[in-house]
Amino acid sequence: MKWNERIKEKVEKTKNVSSIISNLSTEEKNSFLEKLAQNIDKEKESIIKNNKKDVEKAKKMGYGSAFIDRLEISEKRVEKMIKSINDVRNLPDPAGKIIWENERPNGLIIKRKRVPIGVIGIIYESRPDVTIEASILCIKAGNCVILRGGKEARNSNRKLVEIMKKSLKETGIPADCVNLILSGGRKGVKYLLKLYQFIDLIIPRGGESLIKVVVENSLIPVIKHYKGICHTYIDKYADVDMALKVSFNAKVQRPATCNATETLLVHKDIAEEFLPKIAKMFEKAGVEIRGCEKTGKILKGIKKAKEDDWKTEYLDLIISIKIVNSVDEAIEHISKYGTSHSDAIITENKEIAEKFLKMVDSAAVYHNASTRFTDGGEFGLGAEIGISTDKIHARGPMGLEELTTYKYIIYGNGQIRE
Amino acid sequence: MKWNERIKEKVEKTKNVSSIISNLSTEEKNSFLEKLAQNIDKEKESIIKNNKKDVEKAKKMGYGSAFIDRLEISEKRVEKMIKSINDVRNLPDPAGKIIWENERPNGLIIKRKRVPIGVIGIIYESRPDVTIEASILCIKAGNCVILRGGKEARNSNRKLVEIMKKSLKETGIPADCVNLILSGGRKGVKYLLKLYQFIDLIIPRGGESLIKVVVENSLIPVIKHYKGICHTYIDKYADVDMALKVSFNAKVQRPATCNATETLLVHKDIAEEFLPKIAKMFEKAGVEIRGCEKTGKILKGIKKAKEDDWKTEYLDLIISIKIVNSVDEAIEHISKYGTSHSDAIITENKEIAEKFLKMVDSAAVYHNASTRFTDGGEFGLGAEIGISTDKIHARGPMGLEELTTYKYIIYGNGQIRE
Repeated sequence: MKWNERIKEKVEKTKNVSSIISNLSTEEKNSFLEKLAQNIDKEKESIIKNNKKDVEKAKKMGYGSAFIDRLEISEKRVEKMIKSINDVRNLPDPAGKIIWENERPNGLIIKRKRVPIGVIGIIYESRPDVTIEASILCIKAGNCVILRGGKEARNSNRKLVEIMKKSLKETGIPADCVNLILSGGRKGVKYLLKLYQFIDLIIPRGGESLIKVVVENSLIPVIKHYKGICHTYIDKYADVDMALKVSFNAKVQRPATCNATETLLVHKDIAEEFLPKIAKMFEKAGVEIRGCEKTGKILKGIKKAKEDDWKTEYLDLIISIKIVNSVDEAIEHISKYGTSHSDAIITENKEIAEKFLKMVDSAAVYHNASTRFTDGGEFGLGAEIGISTDKIHARGPMGLEELTTYKYIIYGNGQIRE
Repeated sequence: MKWNERIKEKVEKTKNVSSIISNLSTEEKNSFLEKLAQNIDKEKESIIKNNKKDVEKAKKMGYGSAFIDRLEISEKRVEKMIKSINDVRNLPDPAGKIIWENERPNGLIIKRKRVPIGVIGIIYESRPDVTIEASILCIKAGNCVILRGGKEARNSNRKLVEIMKKSLKETGIPADCVNLILSGGRKGVKYLLKLYQFIDLIIPRGGESLIKVVVENSLIPVIKHYKGICHTYIDKYADVDMALKVSFNAKVQRPATCNATETLLVHKDIAEEFLPKIAKMFEKAGVEIRGCEKTGKILKGIKKAKEDDWKTEYLDLIISIKIVNSVDEAIEHISKYGTSHSDAIITENKEIAEKFLKMVDSAAVYHNASTRFTDGGEFGLGAEIGISTDKIHARGPMGLEELTTYKYIIYGNGQIRE
């Protein structure tokens, strides 16, 4: 069989069991998750052994330490997988609820019911923890999953999917609910993205170039996380201590995440007081500052920010700083350079805060808090499959509910349209 | 200026006013709609005169009567436009509501607020009534609109957009809230579909080939109406009189609509009683029957259905009929040939009905009612901008609420992430 036929066959098989999976009870789905946690624990050694093959090959091929870190399944990471599975098992089932109801004058009863989406394709890099995390969320919401992980994690993913299929079978659920696509290389991804008859949604997880390939080639709806260029604006009326604490946290606490702040916008009237203090804190933490011209006049000797700096998601201990004349200029800057992810204002002035929260068109807008909170868990949504910077279907942290859609169910007694 | 620069300039201008439009009050939006209804009434003659130019040219170019009918703006159609505007004015404003709220243990207050999507692109054929209908729905929900209508309606659309811009200005709303793109031909459409930095959502309205071009070329999320191959299944336990009445209505009442039934599935145990009766009714109404082999044994002399018939949206007085052995076979047929639009079961058996409603994966599933009811107005959602056969964001009739998204607004008092 050719690679494309192999892909199509697997995808079609997945689609064929979708109506069974989408009608499972919460108990059945939870039994699977329980079984899966047990089986992963049992096969811990075999998982790590298979992962070692991938890691060794990747090292030989010269991949860097960040790549290897994401690829590696340590014993601790297995424990984390098991914890995730138990967490998801404890989350409420989003499917099956009647979310709207309407009786019409002609007697028709119209109900809107939350139902699983169907078949979800996850396209991601060589991160085997995503294999488990994405699958359990999709299945808990009643969906089938097509996994297309990075080729460097091939052995790890094979083993993990084997364990998932075994756990499905042991719970009496069709094993085709999860399928891993390995064939075809880049071409295989592009081919997969055309199979709109069988796949209802694509969620890519990875860097900019992966997202680009997916968006440019997909005939299937895509929900994506593009970039997180997040801003914290220190208003003229900010409490300086709070501004220092929050903006330091937003940059430094975990700089490699998408919700870390990349640019500080500082009102001109507070800059002279605020900037030297934050600069000292940043210096101590090893943060490189790149400032606008005015910033450079207050913080002598810093690097000058170029136009490109406002457009860059550093994901690192680097911050760009710009002095602005007003909240309006801050809003304008965010509208021009932001990525609709997370942006914050620090101010004691409620009116200015409300203006910012209203006019900044981002998934999450904060008043007096760190942008680092944009996260399904922190929002109280439970686990998340990602953070959407799109506006369609899901915005911000995507939890279980965002992995469902709805259908209309209409009860009549012979009504016809006149 | 080149055509692509002209397109980009207009689209960018639209995006630039988007944050103003999305923060208008309900009163401001309603004032615009009131003004628009008045201005359309005032300029009725000029609208019809401009439309005449389009109609005459189209006739000269040899377009058929169905095309001309959709293109033509009669006095009655102007009245209908005015009525639509008043109807939309009276609908509740979906934007601005807090739809979810959560106070976290750390004191953060997280609110989910319904907000407009931003800039919506409508790509459609030469139907000038869509110009008004789509625009007023988008604007009522707080969105800007980019219109790309068929070139044959160029003069009509220009006039209608001129009146919309005038009405916006008279209400103090930036006229760039609505823009019409005329340049570039097919290439222009493809270029427009790449401008994801400025447009948040594309809604194509038209035939299969238009939808295909849009889906294949868009880098912007698309919500589409693909096809409506709707089924009515007459179960063994159907009330025959009801089955006759409902399935006749589902086919005949307005056969050119997407929610008209194209295929009847009939349980073998009721076929001998039901088929001759419905055939008589269909014959009287001029409906051509194409049946499976078994149907042909009961209804002598009918046309034989080919494989292609099950896949065809006739949009005409033609129906295909298949005899099935069980509700499961009916569900399977719908899963194979349906388009996830609208499907009905006629039965007095509640258990069988529930199975059908659960297992058929369509936007609207009916028990004992005509598929013709799939419509925003009939569902009580108000006016609709279309019917989505996608599962992402909106499913079935898309009303005002489906033209919004949400954002998270987070209120803190200095919280940082530990």
